[in-house]
Amino acid sequence: MLDTHSGKPILQPVARGKKAALAATRAARIVIENLDPDAGPDCVAIKRCVGDTVTVEADIYADGHDRLAARLLWRATDSADWQAVPMTPLPNDRWRASFVPRRLGRHEFTVEAWWDRWATLVDHLVRKRAAGQPLGVEVAEARALLDAASAGASSAQADAIDRACARLDALADAAAAGAAPVADADADTDANHAEAGGTAGAAMTGEGVAAPDLAARPEPALDLLLSDELGAIVHDTLERAFLVRAEPPVALDAERLRARFASWYELFPRSITDSPERHGTFADVIGRLPAISAMGFDVLYFPPIHPIGRSHRKGRNNTLTAAPDDPGSPYAIGSEEGGHDAIHPQLGTLDDFRQLRDAAADHGLELAIDFAIQCSPDHPWLKQHPGWFAWRPDGSIKHAENPPKKYEDIVNVDFYARDAMPDLWIALRDVVLFWVKEGVKIFRVDNPHTKPLPFWQWLIAEVRGRHPETMFLSEAFTRPKPMYRLGKVGFNQSYSYFTWRNTKAEFIQYLTELSAPPVRDVYRPNFFVNTPDINPKFLHDSGRPGFLIRAALAATLSGLWGVFAGFELCESAPVPGKEEYLDSDKYEIRPRDWNAPGNIIGEIAALNRVRRENPALQTHTNAQFLNCWNDNILYFAKATEDLSNFILVAINLDPKRVQEADFELPLWLFGLPDDGSLAGEDLMTGHKWIWTGKMQHTRLDPWFAPYGVWRVSRG
Amino acid sequence: MLDTHSGKPILQPVARGKKAALAATRAARIVIENLDPDAGPDCVAIKRCVGDTVTVEADIYADGHDRLAARLLWRATDSADWQAVPMTPLPNDRWRASFVPRRLGRHEFTVEAWWDRWATLVDHLVRKRAAGQPLGVEVAEARALLDAASAGASSAQADAIDRACARLDALADAAAAGAAPVADADADTDANHAEAGGTAGAAMTGEGVAAPDLAARPEPALDLLLSDELGAIVHDTLERAFLVRAEPPVALDAERLRARFASWYELFPRSITDSPERHGTFADVIGRLPAISAMGFDVLYFPPIHPIGRSHRKGRNNTLTAAPDDPGSPYAIGSEEGGHDAIHPQLGTLDDFRQLRDAAADHGLELAIDFAIQCSPDHPWLKQHPGWFAWRPDGSIKHAENPPKKYEDIVNVDFYARDAMPDLWIALRDVVLFWVKEGVKIFRVDNPHTKPLPFWQWLIAEVRGRHPETMFLSEAFTRPKPMYRLGKVGFNQSYSYFTWRNTKAEFIQYLTELSAPPVRDVYRPNFFVNTPDINPKFLHDSGRPGFLIRAALAATLSGLWGVFAGFELCESAPVPGKEEYLDSDKYEIRPRDWNAPGNIIGEIAALNRVRRENPALQTHTNAQFLNCWNDNILYFAKATEDLSNFILVAINLDPKRVQEADFELPLWLFGLPDDGSLAGEDLMTGHKWIWTGKMQHTRLDPWFAPYGVWRVSRG
Repeated sequence: MLDTHSGKPILQPVARGKKAALAATRAARIVIENLDPDAGPDCVAIKRCVGDTVTVEADIYADGHDRLAARLLWRATDSADWQAVPMTPLPNDRWRASFVPRRLGRHEFTVEAWWDRWATLVDHLVRKRAAGQPLGVEVAEARALLDAASAGASSAQADAIDRACARLDALADAAAAGAAPVADADADTDANHAEAGGTAGAAMTGEGVAAPDLAARPEPALDLLLSDELGAIVHDTLERAFLVRAEPPVALDAERLRARFASWYELFPRSITDSPERHGTFADVIGRLPAISAMGFDVLYFPPIHPIGRSHRKGRNNTLTAAPDDPGSPYAIGSEEGGHDAIHPQLGTLDDFRQLRDAAADHGLELAIDFAIQCSPDHPWLKQHPGWFAWRPDGSIKHAENPPKKYEDIVNVDFYARDAMPDLWIALRDVVLFWVKEGVKIFRVDNPHTKPLPFWQWLIAEVRGRHPETMFLSEAFTRPKPMYRLGKVGFNQSYSYFTWRNTKAEFIQYLTELSAPPVRDVYRPNFFVNTPDINPKFLHDSGRPGFLIRAALAATLSGLWGVFAGFELCESAPVPGKEEYLDSDKYEIRPRDWNAPGNIIGEIAALNRVRRENPALQTHTNAQFLNCWNDNILYFAKATEDLSNFILVAINLDPKRVQEADFELPLWLFGLPDDGSLAGEDLMTGHKWIWTGKMQHTRLDPWFAPYGVWRVSRG
Repeated sequence: MLDTHSGKPILQPVARGKKAALAATRAARIVIENLDPDAGPDCVAIKRCVGDTVTVEADIYADGHDRLAARLLWRATDSADWQAVPMTPLPNDRWRASFVPRRLGRHEFTVEAWWDRWATLVDHLVRKRAAGQPLGVEVAEARALLDAASAGASSAQADAIDRACARLDALADAAAAGAAPVADADADTDANHAEAGGTAGAAMTGEGVAAPDLAARPEPALDLLLSDELGAIVHDTLERAFLVRAEPPVALDAERLRARFASWYELFPRSITDSPERHGTFADVIGRLPAISAMGFDVLYFPPIHPIGRSHRKGRNNTLTAAPDDPGSPYAIGSEEGGHDAIHPQLGTLDDFRQLRDAAADHGLELAIDFAIQCSPDHPWLKQHPGWFAWRPDGSIKHAENPPKKYEDIVNVDFYARDAMPDLWIALRDVVLFWVKEGVKIFRVDNPHTKPLPFWQWLIAEVRGRHPETMFLSEAFTRPKPMYRLGKVGFNQSYSYFTWRNTKAEFIQYLTELSAPPVRDVYRPNFFVNTPDINPKFLHDSGRPGFLIRAALAATLSGLWGVFAGFELCESAPVPGKEEYLDSDKYEIRPRDWNAPGNIIGEIAALNRVRRENPALQTHTNAQFLNCWNDNILYFAKATEDLSNFILVAINLDPKRVQEADFELPLWLFGLPDDGSLAGEDLMTGHKWIWTGKMQHTRLDPWFAPYGVWRVSRG
């Protein structure tokens, strides 16, 4: 032997006797595996929206060559009954079916498969008939299966089966007697109901035995056995041999469409003012609603609106000492005026907030607020619940820090402090439920990746179990695996790496990663073009064309995109050398001239209009990147599954230069030849034309129109 | 709302009160996922060999920025104790460690991770020191962790921790007193054992508080805290916070090296004769052993050696009527002379078999026999156990068939017949155990994909649990998913699609698929160049060069390859239009001239010698396909993990024409620049040279040497 093993071989306990063998005979004979979608045991639920077509595939196979059947089972979790959908076999042992959840909330689905004895027999009949082989034994076997099927049938089904049996028996009798087959006899006549079954078995013969055989004139019997009507009845009634079901079922949340298709606008309410000396209010924000709505946004998101701490308050531009009139960062939550369930007095009252909420709804805008768990050192919890925080040997409380970085104006709770389990957890849940009661159903969560995953899984289940319309956006600018994992534990949307993707290759790689399972099923990216924390380098010197490019990329690549106020005005002045805004709203009141020249308000409104009108643009999962022979032009198709809405997008990624290129019109996706034609429409301008031929050309001028969004159709 | 949902939202049961929240606080905080290798819950055990380095990776992460630690745990399943190996973090939250199983049989492994409070603190100390920030609080926290670590320590460890604490306390005292640090004090002196801890906490201060701080002269304290010795002790002794373990462990079979590295030779013993009139015997086979061994083979495999049925016996070339002297197909097992545990009388007796087995072992050849479950209609089981077969309505027994194909000379057992569960299963297991007792430890299993998967899973567990050295080769020429699944249920090797892969792109695609998990971990392909059932089209008109090409491909791409007798003589006459041999051994006695001119015996012997001498060639999982600018030349590297054995192979896939090409010498894999040098050696000829520069050229003449196998090294 060539082996180099040492020591005694390791023996496995082997069951003696028949018991283990008997158990093996009862194990699943059919394999169901590689269910898709299925994000695995760690995933709370995969994500879809109400009305989405959920297409389910699985590998299903067993030993041998016999035919299998399979069905998809699905239900709402508050229902005891499964809905069943037959699955269709695809090449390579893959099966598929789909369903459409119609109610908001938790569903589940699974797959069942069984040995299809009838289809196997029908298949043998067809193949043997084609080869001219005798069929008698198969017909007799079919007769026996029909008897078995009758046992599980309703009375109407049993009647139909009985009629078929009687007819088969009559045909067999006729064959045995050498008579002509009963070609035109009505299957429903009394004659055919006669008890002829007893002789059928004897009439049927094995191969090579000289005896009357239906093979001589088998057509009437075969027509009957191969009929779709009989097949459907037997499919319903015959016992499902070797039935197996994939366990456990896959959980699926049917969410609001807004979970995958929404256009976010973010502002600091205090900056909605005409002077840095006057703190903006909720009432001021009401005045801005028409303009925000006219841009086509439908979610209006505010950073924290709670009282701001005084201790270690930050000054303008994140300086360590605040001037007396500096408002501080709203992320330093909590003061003697209250904590996470209070409103910063300078913004207004809870009633003012309610008025704003209702006014926003009147403008088609849903409010989203920030859920930021850190506390200012002045937060009431520090006195009420000192045991919820991590105290240090010197009696100080642990500041948030990532050495050498510090966040002096905030301290973090300690989720695993003895007193915090579970009182802190419950208090935080109740903060969310408080705002849900106030009509807030969307929460942007600050830095969730620095809080425990089990906390989020529990909190989101608690809130969405009671209020399945609630949504959570994860601001997890962290490494990819924790970022996706937050989706698995329940976050409905997430910030993404979009702001740091700039080249064609990067976009293709990133969208491909986001569109492949399991990421596709658990993580929905919200493509913010900027945030109060991210002033992307690309925009620092791109000028207005750069803003158009980034807006078009976000608005067309993803169903979810977001804009932080100022972007539409092409603001980009950075803290030198950093991706941060100079004079950031985070630390000061910052009024703006909303009609400043050079703004891109019109273009944003057009992009949002096109998104609303074209379902193909309402998800990030359907981008197909197509050939375009210029690395500065990103060119892709997005279409609904039935191709009824088919959009082509070409974006010049270079804000400084005109780029042009040949590109391929995807005629093949419409089943058209390379010289075929498609009707095209420029969705920004309304211009229409006919494109003929696969090879086309485009020219994208950053100062005129750095992108084209075209709807194409056969018509 | 844009939503189109109907009906009431689905509410989830939400636990009220503290209980569910408390449970959530106890859920795993750290994520361990994407263990590799791990072929999933349906896999009985992944496959490795004794002495293999098993490298295990996992994604491990948690919330926040604190440091984690992880270890790999592994054991033989007959041992209660886990062996632990620390895991090393790689980029992107991936961790890795490895172990080497030394005993034959079932092992298991898993991964544990925990919050590394000490490493986190050390990390903060290092980063704050680099930033010049105060360190007093961190040193006090370290002091507290040392106290905690002491609780779980052995007395020697506790002594070391005590010494460190005393030293820290002394340093803190000195700092508080404004004195010079106790730079050179012996850590073991009585003075340092003094109770100074009480004042340490008071001496340490938070940031921004003016008080004595170790930051002023922190080096001696830091050197102590950052020392590897102290770190190792604390790593061992400090309670593992938030400890989590991946469950269930992954099962792994450590098999004989022959499971992944073997060279098979197949023959029909009855053809080992000098005349078609004289039935070859086991004694004749003994006479062939020196020649087979000299070709370098180490497994000698026979098709079924059991009594052959008479009913419906096949004649020469698979004709339906046998002449009186036709021997029939050995796959029609069973006659009045016996069944699966008997020997065909014309081959010899059981004692003759034992003599052959021992003689083969003396020549370094291990016997493999066929386990083919079908029966001839004359098999004793048909009378003894009629309930093990499927009877048809006409009283006939079901022949094996795949309409319109028929196998008239065999009938199949019915695994799920009432009488067969489990008696037939047990009888089949006992057939295997019978031959195991006769010293057969390798079984080639005929058509396992037409028998139930649970049967194989049970049978292989029963046999290998008692005899872990036993191996099963699956002859599953079926679709890819069932083929791989047979590996998951326990087959150690399998036939493959090798004989139908011919182009460069096909080989690259196929080897890539076989080398990626989970296939890599469950399925080992045995690259047979031909079998009694497969006379590959490629060889029909390739001439001798084609045989050399296919031998080189199989022998260098896979650790397992096989040859059916006649290949070395370049036999290729087909049944016209089919991939079958004319005058096949399957239906007649077929003597051969083993020294026929034009044979490739010398080349096969050389290939097997090179395989034995070079561990890089003893697996299929390590092929790296390299650039070679000719689509007719397949060029790849195979190397051991430490690169100590590094082989380059170039094969001309075109048996008709000389092919030449530039190719890249993979200097980069040795860390060498593009103008570096490597020593080369032609392993077929022994010629040696120095290769300089990345771009090289080769010329492969099919009539002279259609392949090159070169060992390269730095030396």
